[in-house]
Amino acid sequence: MGRVTARRPVLRIRDGKPSRRPDTLAVEEPMEIRVNERSLTVTMRTPGDDFDLAVGFLVSEGVLHSADDLVTARYCAGTAADGLNTYNLVDVDLADDVPVPDTSLERNFYTTSSCGLCGKASLDAVRTTAAWSVADDPMRVGAEVLAALPDRLRDAQKIFDKTGGLHAAGLFSADGQLLCVREDVGRHNAVDKVIGHALRNDLLPLRETILMVSGRASFELVQKAVMAGIPLLAAVSAPSSLAVDLADENGLTLVGFLRDHSMNVYARADRVGTVSR
Amino acid sequence: MGRVTARRPVLRIRDGKPSRRPDTLAVEEPMEIRVNERSLTVTMRTPGDDFDLAVGFLVSEGVLHSADDLVTARYCAGTAADGLNTYNLVDVDLADDVPVPDTSLERNFYTTSSCGLCGKASLDAVRTTAAWSVADDPMRVGAEVLAALPDRLRDAQKIFDKTGGLHAAGLFSADGQLLCVREDVGRHNAVDKVIGHALRNDLLPLRETILMVSGRASFELVQKAVMAGIPLLAAVSAPSSLAVDLADENGLTLVGFLRDHSMNVYARADRVGTVSR
Repeated sequence: MGRVTARRPVLRIRDGKPSRRPDTLAVEEPMEIRVNERSLTVTMRTPGDDFDLAVGFLVSEGVLHSADDLVTARYCAGTAADGLNTYNLVDVDLADDVPVPDTSLERNFYTTSSCGLCGKASLDAVRTTAAWSVADDPMRVGAEVLAALPDRLRDAQKIFDKTGGLHAAGLFSADGQLLCVREDVGRHNAVDKVIGHALRNDLLPLRETILMVSGRASFELVQKAVMAGIPLLAAVSAPSSLAVDLADENGLTLVGFLRDHSMNVYARADRVGTVSR
Repeated sequence: MGRVTARRPVLRIRDGKPSRRPDTLAVEEPMEIRVNERSLTVTMRTPGDDFDLAVGFLVSEGVLHSADDLVTARYCAGTAADGLNTYNLVDVDLADDVPVPDTSLERNFYTTSSCGLCGKASLDAVRTTAAWSVADDPMRVGAEVLAALPDRLRDAQKIFDKTGGLHAAGLFSADGQLLCVREDVGRHNAVDKVIGHALRNDLLPLRETILMVSGRASFELVQKAVMAGIPLLAAVSAPSSLAVDLADENGLTLVGFLRDHSMNVYARADRVGTVSR
């Protein structure tokens, strides 16, 4: 698409001294996801792998579970003032037997009608929506395998990222081989792109795999891993309390602060092998 | 509230050697924002300054412009299974003459019906919704003032942040004095909390001020600054292409990669004074 990065002039100031130069930025554009031609949500994303993004979003939300659920994903004919297709509207056509989500779908994971809005209700919503459990996934990973992932993710990212402005999500096998990497201005989008790629290749649930993300681990990212059947989520930075609670409840191994050959394991540490075990 | 941080047990692994210890995490909980008792949106946030968050969100979305527009913000009586108030539902009561937003409000900034969904339409939507212009704000800031802000923000953050998992937003005067700082697991929430605090103290538009954020500068953060009348947004990390375009179009000074006494100015660089000017 040629729209992943853009050049802009910039005034660089170092120790008070200015210089002018061009700078490469990550492109951010809105994308609307439609299901059976009905608008569902709009996300700000970096163009590219748009079908993966739309499909992965629908996996994360519990709408799609296998390649059979998906008929097709395509760009709609939305045009800008210049008459050109914006490539910012993706319509996902569901198989006849797949229930169409209602437009309040994005709130389903945060609240249920049975009790007040709270973290516990959010946890329950994920557990009751997930099509499979990651709790019984037999994967074991050596700590040394995990320790090597940040460099591998960064190396894969370097190919694309001249901007310093893109988040990355990488899917790895249990022995640390990179299976898929995606980048986006939004971390949740990068994860959805990885998951959508997997569904479109009929690889769900993603048993015995590791999802590694730049930045922090939120409730939402743990939710996405659970919905895709991924048993281990690793993040460069800190998890939130609710991310840990959701990992605990679903039997997902959650690793945070994975950097400099060090890590914290917040849930299901039994999957991580260490020297003294 | 005592709910900003939470303790969890963690398995720490350093160079393959495990040790167990407690870890302090940033709390993440869902919060529903209601307007005149009608549900508008749910956001995952760190509890605390919840009224600021709800009010600031409504400023960012173009619903509230001054303290007169706001009658009150209060917790609704939503209760969890244990019968206790969850403090996760905030209702904002608007003055009689303030138009009530419709529930598709969160999409207003991304798309207009007049053309295909695209970045340009998103830019136009902000310009036509903003109640004031930041383009004519006369503020000038020395580069040395900006260079000092990251340390000041981090110092203010240290008071709260033992978790490594919180984003910060700080409002500064043109001479670099800290006016308000807020933290949250979500960067957009931290910014909304700052803006909501300002509206509740009838300080909008925030002329001749600087908003500094940890992390990256997205379209959404520039939008929030414009809607609050803030003429300069500075970020520790990279901006996106659409963030730069929106800053350009609205005459907002956008500073990125502000760290190590260095910075990039992406828009309206005339507000930043350097040695050789």
